[in-house]
Amino acid sequence: MRAVDIIIKKRNGEILSKDEIAFMVNGYTKGEVEDYQMSAFAMAVYFRGMTDLETTYLTEAMLKTGDELDLSAIKGVKVDKHSTGGVGDKTTLVVGPIVASLGVKFAKMSGRGLGHTGGTLDKLESIPGFKIQIANEDFIKQVNEINMAVVGQSANLALADKKLYSLRDVTGTVDSIPLIASSIMSKKLASGADVISLDVKVGSGAFMKDIESATKLAELMVQIGKNCGRSMTAILTNMDEPLGYAVGNSLEVIEAINTLKGNGPKDFTDLCNIFSAHLLIDAKLAKTEEEALEMVNEAVRSGKALETFKKFVKAQGGNPNVVDDYSLFEQAKYQFEVKALRDGYVSKIDALTVGNASCLLGAGREKLSDSVDHAVGIVLSKKVGDKVSKGDVLATIYANKNDVKTETEMLNKAFIIENESKEMKLILKIVK
Amino acid sequence: MRAVDIIIKKRNGEILSKDEIAFMVNGYTKGEVEDYQMSAFAMAVYFRGMTDLETTYLTEAMLKTGDELDLSAIKGVKVDKHSTGGVGDKTTLVVGPIVASLGVKFAKMSGRGLGHTGGTLDKLESIPGFKIQIANEDFIKQVNEINMAVVGQSANLALADKKLYSLRDVTGTVDSIPLIASSIMSKKLASGADVISLDVKVGSGAFMKDIESATKLAELMVQIGKNCGRSMTAILTNMDEPLGYAVGNSLEVIEAINTLKGNGPKDFTDLCNIFSAHLLIDAKLAKTEEEALEMVNEAVRSGKALETFKKFVKAQGGNPNVVDDYSLFEQAKYQFEVKALRDGYVSKIDALTVGNASCLLGAGREKLSDSVDHAVGIVLSKKVGDKVSKGDVLATIYANKNDVKTETEMLNKAFIIENESKEMKLILKIVK
Repeated sequence: MRAVDIIIKKRNGEILSKDEIAFMVNGYTKGEVEDYQMSAFAMAVYFRGMTDLETTYLTEAMLKTGDELDLSAIKGVKVDKHSTGGVGDKTTLVVGPIVASLGVKFAKMSGRGLGHTGGTLDKLESIPGFKIQIANEDFIKQVNEINMAVVGQSANLALADKKLYSLRDVTGTVDSIPLIASSIMSKKLASGADVISLDVKVGSGAFMKDIESATKLAELMVQIGKNCGRSMTAILTNMDEPLGYAVGNSLEVIEAINTLKGNGPKDFTDLCNIFSAHLLIDAKLAKTEEEALEMVNEAVRSGKALETFKKFVKAQGGNPNVVDDYSLFEQAKYQFEVKALRDGYVSKIDALTVGNASCLLGAGREKLSDSVDHAVGIVLSKKVGDKVSKGDVLATIYANKNDVKTETEMLNKAFIIENESKEMKLILKIVK
Repeated sequence: MRAVDIIIKKRNGEILSKDEIAFMVNGYTKGEVEDYQMSAFAMAVYFRGMTDLETTYLTEAMLKTGDELDLSAIKGVKVDKHSTGGVGDKTTLVVGPIVASLGVKFAKMSGRGLGHTGGTLDKLESIPGFKIQIANEDFIKQVNEINMAVVGQSANLALADKKLYSLRDVTGTVDSIPLIASSIMSKKLASGADVISLDVKVGSGAFMKDIESATKLAELMVQIGKNCGRSMTAILTNMDEPLGYAVGNSLEVIEAINTLKGNGPKDFTDLCNIFSAHLLIDAKLAKTEEEALEMVNEAVRSGKALETFKKFVKAQGGNPNVVDDYSLFEQAKYQFEVKALRDGYVSKIDALTVGNASCLLGAGREKLSDSVDHAVGIVLSKKVGDKVSKGDVLATIYANKNDVKTETEMLNKAFIIENESKEMKLILKIVK
């Protein structure tokens, strides 16, 4: 087998065999297939696409180039949740405790934030004392005891994906649905869960700009997971505004705790409930969405979900008292209000711009080696559909610097205010 | 400017500016644009194509990364001829002397053969004493004195093309018309001729498999040349059989000499005449094809063309007596006849297979560092359209080894014999 022949075969629109795909992936990981061959191959895939089966082979081949987590020592159904990257997305912090309190094993490996999207690990680390590095056996023990753990993703998952992703980034081959799907799924499958739930963001700030391509991506990832024997749900959600009101690490943890107390923002609460419900269904703990949603509501109402969150924080070295005393979080020095420049209705809040403004405040990082300020961020006061008058507060900036002119301008630009009221649908589609 | 943005722009089907193309080519030559970016770019060009103007910019940018030959010290119109690679193609050896004898300056840089196609330099070197390395000033002096010189191509022509061609070869991006056109034309333009004549081969063994793609390539190269102020003709010729009867270095030189004496094979003679005629027209020495063909015939009839060939051989250190005594060429030790396995009419002689058989005998090379056996090769006895009976000699193998089983089998496979007679048209189209 020669790499050039496999490139030409894909370039000509032919379907590749499992062996041919494995040859490319393994050769690339070992350095026998060159970067310049892999980038030409990726560009050919961009133009010709891949069948579901080819993409499954690609995913499996990448998965096998790294460690695979063995969760067999955990009793019960192991579930995992993944988002393609949102702004203000603290779903894991709510869905995890809810389903864990209902008997599901929530064993999650998570990543750091990069660019405008925050990472779950950074959010958790804003809780004083919280540790995201746990030995494998402790991870398994914790999940067996309290049904939930979230740890840093092993550096050795799907090594081919890591190498390929860096290459795609500089060769114009990021926006290929089979390549995106196999990248996400190779890491998810390596994490060992039986049930996987995916949040596919749709909108100008997301990987997928429209519902058609998001549906394709979702269907493909669900198919790959099923081909590999997993129970899958993908939910397409709107990213035409940030999720909830809070953007920034500790600000988002506080909003998650409020949600676990039953006082969360409507959009975010709805999202957490629907994700939790489908995890319960896929884990065979509920038959219908109605039944599952009732279980979810009861978990929050009864305080069981919040109790599980506390146990989870404590188990990973964090101070569980933050749940009752938000002043235990690091506090930002300054607060600034961003005010509406005109009357009207909020029709869009560009999530990418809000994420970038938050990043600029220090809540995110440009490079993986940058450190993150856990206290800073943005709390919105208005959401899409809200009526505003000139001078109303649109958002509050939490900063550790006293000049936020740029961030203020960015937020004023992010808020699109129009004359007509507009409704936004958050949950666009469920793919199973 | 960033390479990745230019790749994405081309990937998305947009038209690149002159600066963007120059950025890619210059960056690549200097090592600032990486191999893996250039290969992804080449694959995007494969799928999206390039406009005539983009391809001209690409050609010019590549041309400028190497030496450009200054032929201004040569008086008169300088002409050059290039073939996209044929089997049995010794056209330069006949066209050169014909037009040179009629006052045109035939100043040609030529390449070595590789794979199944022979190189003009290898053919010339089969003449005892012939030298293909001449200092620049001697080259110019020789052309001024006898109107003709053929030298080895400078290693420093179009450096970007050299690097890019190696990359395309291993990344499945060879078969892209804009990339083929710019590769050929960057070297042709660097060679400094005013008039350029191109032989674009069409057929299963050629770069261009069908007349549509060959026409596209021809039109594009003619347009690039015109955009750069040159007079251009491209002639599409059939490669459904080798050109003439002889394949192999000295065997082809002998056939060329016979043709200069007026005793050449009909197909090859016709081809040389039409090329010579169009060079005369483009050099403004003739107005119509009829007038030009008459001049060409007279040059052969009078012996002037043969005389020029002799002077040319002598000027470059070769023994001009080979013209009258073919035994002065190195002789192959063995001859073997290949016989027809059935009755019928020859409908095709696969040129690629004949070229490969000749290469296997030692007449060609697999790698540029291989040496070449000047004496060996194949002389056909039958051509397309000829009637054959079982047992008739189809070809004679000239070898320096006594086992030619493989070559014999290849030749029997190359000759397609069918029940019906078929005509083959050699000159398919003229693009100006």
